[in-house]
Amino acid sequence: MLALNTATLGHNLDGHGAGWTPEEVIDVCAALGYGGITFWRRELGRRAQQIGERTRAAGLEVVGLCRTPFLTGPLALPSEREIMDDLHRSIDQAAALGTNVLTIVSGGPEPGTKGVVESQKIVADRVARVAEFAASRNVNLALEPLNPAMAGNRTCLMTAAEALTLCDQIGVQNVGIAIDVYHVWWDTTLHDTLKAQAKGRILGYHLCDWLADTSDMLLDRGMMGDGVADLRSIRCAVENAGYTGYCEAEIFSAENWWKRDPHEVLKTIVKRFRKFC
Amino acid sequence: MLALNTATLGHNLDGHGAGWTPEEVIDVCAALGYGGITFWRRELGRRAQQIGERTRAAGLEVVGLCRTPFLTGPLALPSEREIMDDLHRSIDQAAALGTNVLTIVSGGPEPGTKGVVESQKIVADRVARVAEFAASRNVNLALEPLNPAMAGNRTCLMTAAEALTLCDQIGVQNVGIAIDVYHVWWDTTLHDTLKAQAKGRILGYHLCDWLADTSDMLLDRGMMGDGVADLRSIRCAVENAGYTGYCEAEIFSAENWWKRDPHEVLKTIVKRFRKFC
Repeated sequence: MLALNTATLGHNLDGHGAGWTPEEVIDVCAALGYGGITFWRRELGRRAQQIGERTRAAGLEVVGLCRTPFLTGPLALPSEREIMDDLHRSIDQAAALGTNVLTIVSGGPEPGTKGVVESQKIVADRVARVAEFAASRNVNLALEPLNPAMAGNRTCLMTAAEALTLCDQIGVQNVGIAIDVYHVWWDTTLHDTLKAQAKGRILGYHLCDWLADTSDMLLDRGMMGDGVADLRSIRCAVENAGYTGYCEAEIFSAENWWKRDPHEVLKTIVKRFRKFC
Repeated sequence: MLALNTATLGHNLDGHGAGWTPEEVIDVCAALGYGGITFWRRELGRRAQQIGERTRAAGLEVVGLCRTPFLTGPLALPSEREIMDDLHRSIDQAAALGTNVLTIVSGGPEPGTKGVVESQKIVADRVARVAEFAASRNVNLALEPLNPAMAGNRTCLMTAAEALTLCDQIGVQNVGIAIDVYHVWWDTTLHDTLKAQAKGRILGYHLCDWLADTSDMLLDRGMMGDGVADLRSIRCAVENAGYTGYCEAEIFSAENWWKRDPHEVLKTIVKRFRKFC
């Protein structure tokens, strides 16, 4: 089943994207047969509950919320207190929205440290400290490993294996992982890792493609079928590990798809999903 | 012991870099106490033997030659015959230069294929077919895994583990791997991998740093100490696997170090090597 991550429409920021309200996104997705939507916090304002209800009224599921603040690294909020406060707020927003998946992007190496190991420990600690609160709000936390290209400032979790190891260390029911094609497509150990460690731990599966000549690590993702990722094989690995949720299209593409008519983008995703995924 | 990879001075291309002849590079490196130099093919022309002799006459070793043509992928030469011909030429040039290490950058996924597995098999086949010729010229072939950021078009080997597995499959004495900090710094399995599989297989160790806010995957490498790579730890892993060769500074930095006075660059490397590596 197909879902839309609203980042695919350009975040309505910086002149990119549809400029659509959440309600407009909901209506068009419902009309095109999408099963659900994942929103970003910036789109909710104080309307999380309202937008959640509106989504369900249109026959769609709220698949997830993007995302917690960075928990470590140079892009994180300046103090631990601010990070933890915002982390709690993100859980509240997920609960108000009525979704049970909140994505965690860990953040990169803590300033002053070398490598990623120390930062991974801090992430594990901070997630563990909010896990019970999240459970009380019926929210699961999905650690998303990111492509090593982003390990300088956005992530200290680069592989599914590392994210799953962190889950095991945290050791609670409501912490799992999200698998995003863009971040893991290159990892030839993915099948074995998911088979051995991921049973019941996968909380999200994100679709796009890796363009052979990717020009910008953050904002040049490809439409499914236009790149070199083996999309069928990755989906198999995810579903063989017990994942039965949505395939969520999440295409950051500042110079291509964000510049197109969003109706065209949404229709193309439906076609490409049937053909390539 | 410290060596210079001449790419650090900007390849003398596109207005970057010192504009120095190989002879000038050799003299300045000798004066500053470098132990060796790795050249690029483009710098040799028909003078490989002459430049090799000149290097040794200055008391330096020719540490290696960069590099073979891409063996697969969208950036490779158009036909297998052209690829194999140029691969043989690169081996001849290494032999003429008098170095026994020729670096292989595999190239990315073959056009029309998905994922990297098929391309890895092609790389293994093509390397295996020239290994005996290389051995007859006293040249060892070093498979260099590249950062997954480059897996779209420049590499189908992303980790030391994959490169070592390919070595095992090829199964000859003169094929090993090169470890470059830029490409492997994020890999938390590196120590275990090298310990378990790399004994006697490491043919080169390349130094730079990963900047937290890396802006360009190809040409924004950091000077040692300016980034987040755990340089001491990686060197330990490499030397624990039996590597006794040079630490070779290889800093592609179009917007920073390539724009500076090359004397300053070379002196900075010496200082940073002592302090951070």
